[in-house]
Amino acid sequence: MAESWSFLDTVESNFRPLVVIELAKGTKEETIEWFTKRIVDKKTDGGAQLLIKPLVTENGHENIYLVGASHLRLLLGAETVGLVKECNDNSMRTFTYSSRKTFKDFADDNHNFLTMAECQYIIKHELDNLRAKNEKMIPGYPQAKLYPGKSIVRRLLTSGILVQIFPLHDREELKKLRHSWYGRVRIGYQPLDDIRCYFGETIALYFGFLEYFTFALIPMAVIGIPYYVFAWEDYDKYVMFAAFNLLWSTVILEVWKRICAILTYRWGTLLMKRQFEEPRPGFHGVLGINPVTGREEPVYSSIKRQLRIYLVSLPFVCLCLYFSLYVMMIYFDLEQWALDYHKENESNFSSLMLYVPSIIYAVVIEIMNRIYRYAAEFLTSWENHRLESSYQNHLILKVLVFNFLNCFASLFYIAFVLFDMKLLRQSLATLLITSQILNQFAESLLPYWLQKRHNKRMKQRTSSQKTDMDLSLAEQVSMEKEMGTYLGTFDDYLELFLQFGYVSLFSCVYPLAAVFAVLNNITEIYSDALKMCRVYKRPFAEPTANIGVWQLAFETMSVISVVTNCMLIGMSPQVDALFPDSKMDLVLTVAFVEHLLLAIKFIMAFVIPDKPRDIQMKLAKLEFESLEALKQQ
Amino acid sequence: MAESWSFLDTVESNFRPLVVIELAKGTKEETIEWFTKRIVDKKTDGGAQLLIKPLVTENGHENIYLVGASHLRLLLGAETVGLVKECNDNSMRTFTYSSRKTFKDFADDNHNFLTMAECQYIIKHELDNLRAKNEKMIPGYPQAKLYPGKSIVRRLLTSGILVQIFPLHDREELKKLRHSWYGRVRIGYQPLDDIRCYFGETIALYFGFLEYFTFALIPMAVIGIPYYVFAWEDYDKYVMFAAFNLLWSTVILEVWKRICAILTYRWGTLLMKRQFEEPRPGFHGVLGINPVTGREEPVYSSIKRQLRIYLVSLPFVCLCLYFSLYVMMIYFDLEQWALDYHKENESNFSSLMLYVPSIIYAVVIEIMNRIYRYAAEFLTSWENHRLESSYQNHLILKVLVFNFLNCFASLFYIAFVLFDMKLLRQSLATLLITSQILNQFAESLLPYWLQKRHNKRMKQRTSSQKTDMDLSLAEQVSMEKEMGTYLGTFDDYLELFLQFGYVSLFSCVYPLAAVFAVLNNITEIYSDALKMCRVYKRPFAEPTANIGVWQLAFETMSVISVVTNCMLIGMSPQVDALFPDSKMDLVLTVAFVEHLLLAIKFIMAFVIPDKPRDIQMKLAKLEFESLEALKQQ
Repeated sequence: MAESWSFLDTVESNFRPLVVIELAKGTKEETIEWFTKRIVDKKTDGGAQLLIKPLVTENGHENIYLVGASHLRLLLGAETVGLVKECNDNSMRTFTYSSRKTFKDFADDNHNFLTMAECQYIIKHELDNLRAKNEKMIPGYPQAKLYPGKSIVRRLLTSGILVQIFPLHDREELKKLRHSWYGRVRIGYQPLDDIRCYFGETIALYFGFLEYFTFALIPMAVIGIPYYVFAWEDYDKYVMFAAFNLLWSTVILEVWKRICAILTYRWGTLLMKRQFEEPRPGFHGVLGINPVTGREEPVYSSIKRQLRIYLVSLPFVCLCLYFSLYVMMIYFDLEQWALDYHKENESNFSSLMLYVPSIIYAVVIEIMNRIYRYAAEFLTSWENHRLESSYQNHLILKVLVFNFLNCFASLFYIAFVLFDMKLLRQSLATLLITSQILNQFAESLLPYWLQKRHNKRMKQRTSSQKTDMDLSLAEQVSMEKEMGTYLGTFDDYLELFLQFGYVSLFSCVYPLAAVFAVLNNITEIYSDALKMCRVYKRPFAEPTANIGVWQLAFETMSVISVVTNCMLIGMSPQVDALFPDSKMDLVLTVAFVEHLLLAIKFIMAFVIPDKPRDIQMKLAKLEFESLEALKQQ
Repeated sequence: MAESWSFLDTVESNFRPLVVIELAKGTKEETIEWFTKRIVDKKTDGGAQLLIKPLVTENGHENIYLVGASHLRLLLGAETVGLVKECNDNSMRTFTYSSRKTFKDFADDNHNFLTMAECQYIIKHELDNLRAKNEKMIPGYPQAKLYPGKSIVRRLLTSGILVQIFPLHDREELKKLRHSWYGRVRIGYQPLDDIRCYFGETIALYFGFLEYFTFALIPMAVIGIPYYVFAWEDYDKYVMFAAFNLLWSTVILEVWKRICAILTYRWGTLLMKRQFEEPRPGFHGVLGINPVTGREEPVYSSIKRQLRIYLVSLPFVCLCLYFSLYVMMIYFDLEQWALDYHKENESNFSSLMLYVPSIIYAVVIEIMNRIYRYAAEFLTSWENHRLESSYQNHLILKVLVFNFLNCFASLFYIAFVLFDMKLLRQSLATLLITSQILNQFAESLLPYWLQKRHNKRMKQRTSSQKTDMDLSLAEQVSMEKEMGTYLGTFDDYLELFLQFGYVSLFSCVYPLAAVFAVLNNITEIYSDALKMCRVYKRPFAEPTANIGVWQLAFETMSVISVVTNCMLIGMSPQVDALFPDSKMDLVLTVAFVEHLLLAIKFIMAFVIPDKPRDIQMKLAKLEFESLEALKQQ
């Protein structure tokens, strides 16, 4: 190994820019000098051993730097981050430089062995792991303290010297991807492997889930249509539909785990070892000894954090929930008012007015969700979690609970307190459709329009009529650095989660919900694709092996929907009529069926293996080989 | 490493017998010669490199061999099996020969560094992994086929040439253990660490669980006593008791996981890597290529196995369940007859007769359970599972389902069909107490008595008045080889599982069940300890990190008990009186409370971490170190 590193001394002639670093205007010279020196320094001297070049634009030097790396450096980096690639014998193995010849498509002169997204991920990893040695502070900025082992880039980011780091788009590849993804109107699968190569596994897995979920909803939609068309309201048919829905939702969630395993095995992330988690950038505390690593780093008392969570965050969340219920009661007042108005002046206008309260409420719900989201982010960040994963879990829990209540409380109230099925159907339809329209507008179309207008202005300023492809590197960088930052798949999954709630919680009173969900998701694929390719900066690739906590969230929703659907069926007049003598028999029967369905759900979830047999075999084979190798040692 | 193995050539002077091998009478000389040669052969020649000596008794040579190993060989074996031991810095690490000096209590002349149970486990592992090279059959037995890689010991066992392999007791250690375990009457903890040193982790963990479970039942027993004494039958108090029980049972199962982690961390098994699972000895099939290992070994079509499971085993289990229900109906006829008899001749005798049907039924249940157990073992073995774990899972599933129905069906019938709470209480008490008495008798006292009689006869034959301590090695071996074989912790856990069912399923009608369970478990600890030390051959130690599938079984039982207890409370006349107007409100309230309790249960199980914080930290530290070590490479 030691020899290989020394090859890197020779600066490569054909420098390929991969990542852009933007420093704040007016950053001191000594800081820039020190930072760039640390980036190019040899590994043995504690540097990152990367290549860096300032970007010279027409306006001169703008504190923007391009980072790249030699081919060899990237290969060694791929070993460090533990990339898993396909071998010549079609098995997936962790890449090591010494065994490089055994990997498929590897050749010393093939610079496409690693995808551009992988190269950018490697560079990000190396930059993040560039750590302070004996520096007590960032040169030139005495207030930006450093201690041995602290990530330099994170300190630069938190102290505002480093404005942003982002990976460059590859105009040519992006054009190809756009074409195959949403360039032509067609029915078919998305090019998930290409998306993964360009945007990384987390984003490809989101699009894979979106596509899978859409396909999985189609049977529900197809079965739901005749219920709407023929206005079927028989007991048997409703029960059939609800039972099918409940078991179907279990099956699709279990099958997704298997598909997810197939995808991530092919992409190598299923086998990738988890990296040791470093503190998140925003984490602060007094210097102490980390009991796990034995290193000096900021520590923050876990009791203080617990106090913040239970004495501030929890009451705040409860207050928000109360406020959301209060708004709901106002909505019901409005609804009553509209109903009275309609009764007084029976007209077309007044019957249209019946929908207005629901639409207003849907808009208010969306606005409250978004405001609460910022509050939750602020609070969770203030709780000062040490690890990104812990931060994410607390954030997701806060947001999920509020969103669930905010979106569904009114429906629960209508269904189980007012017992008004007609209003439930109307309210459900309005909420679902309004929120879908709002989301598509706010998430994709509006940003796209803003971005387009901005680009036009930029181009007018450079007063050229070039297409995207002809832009110079400098123009490309200055255009991309102004683009919005994609904040991760959280909002996209949340939208799907709420949609799943609308579809499954009350599926037996409004079978058409699945149809709307399918229609929405088809356009969602296109608008999300547009968003990724056109609106936002390219995000760094994030290797991932599954959709994480969302799997649990969807499963929980499907358990809750068993309870709600059984209650709805039990309350329907048709079922009521079957038990003319004793209400109690009715309730007992419903309770029994509900427990039976829940039991079947759990048994099904237990029986269906999480990984297909061939993936299990491949994993067993790898495990066997590594055990054999250990024995040989 | 290669050098260290060569040290082993010198046969150690102080041979310490660890394991006994008994060959069938009349085994051919060439077979014995070949087998012993393979055992002593060098590792590099494919042998086990152990020491072996024939045992010479008064009756001459009886085909009994003693196996031992040099100290160095055992240390190298400890590395092979991946033992985890405590280091000088109090952390737990995987033992390697090269880092031996860093381990606590290690010294080249300290032969107690490895416990005797560990040494025996190592020898068993080495014997099991003694594999055929080019032999096509066992010399002298052409029908006992071999192929490269087949375990020789397993083939010898399945073809009946090898009668048994068992580890020797250590009379001195056993005496000490017996004294500290059950030698004196006292209230206190069991010496779990000593039990683990002598019998290994699986058995120590069973006794740990038994002890923990007994302590955990004490609060339920203490709260239950006043209900019985004062005959409290108020609604509030019953609900309080049931709610406490339900949450308590969740808490104790979650806390057990934490205690289990503490114990197994201290014993090193929490960190032990899982070994690659070889086919179980009984597995047969036609020679083929294993797709995982690429080795030639018997393969058996998974479709054939599925056919056997679904076309034979499943119908058989259903038939048994039907039979069990049929027997139950006979019991109810008997019960009715006893009641009629009591009504006709009101006497002391007739009121005693009321208990007779339950007692008979309890005995019949126990007998049916035991017969079914053998049938299930036969069937599961006939299903021809390749792995021991898969065999165990199918066996446990079959046995659990039948035992659950067999034991509890009559109680469910009484509670939810006959609605007879008085009979339920009486039946529950009789079943619980009778099964406890039967179990203690059949499992421990009877075998102990048989063993004692046998030993006495043996001693009379050798016509000596020696105590156990003075026995010669030959006498000890010939006594131990006649002792019964301990078949694992399955039956012991099953007994606890059924007891947990009796205590929790109907806890609110019979609060005294917990008291009986506690009393039984205290004697159970003593009788099980007696069984382990006196009745059975010493079992081989089995490293394990948890109680496996039993955790899931207990958790499932505690979920079912939420449902049954809520139903029982809903049916009680006191609760009934609270809802004089509407039965429906009652049922809805009960259903709501039940769902709330289930939700709380799941949230609690999710929130309570499975490992205590300090164990988490220690594991994180080890992970960090191994990642750092990888980086250094």
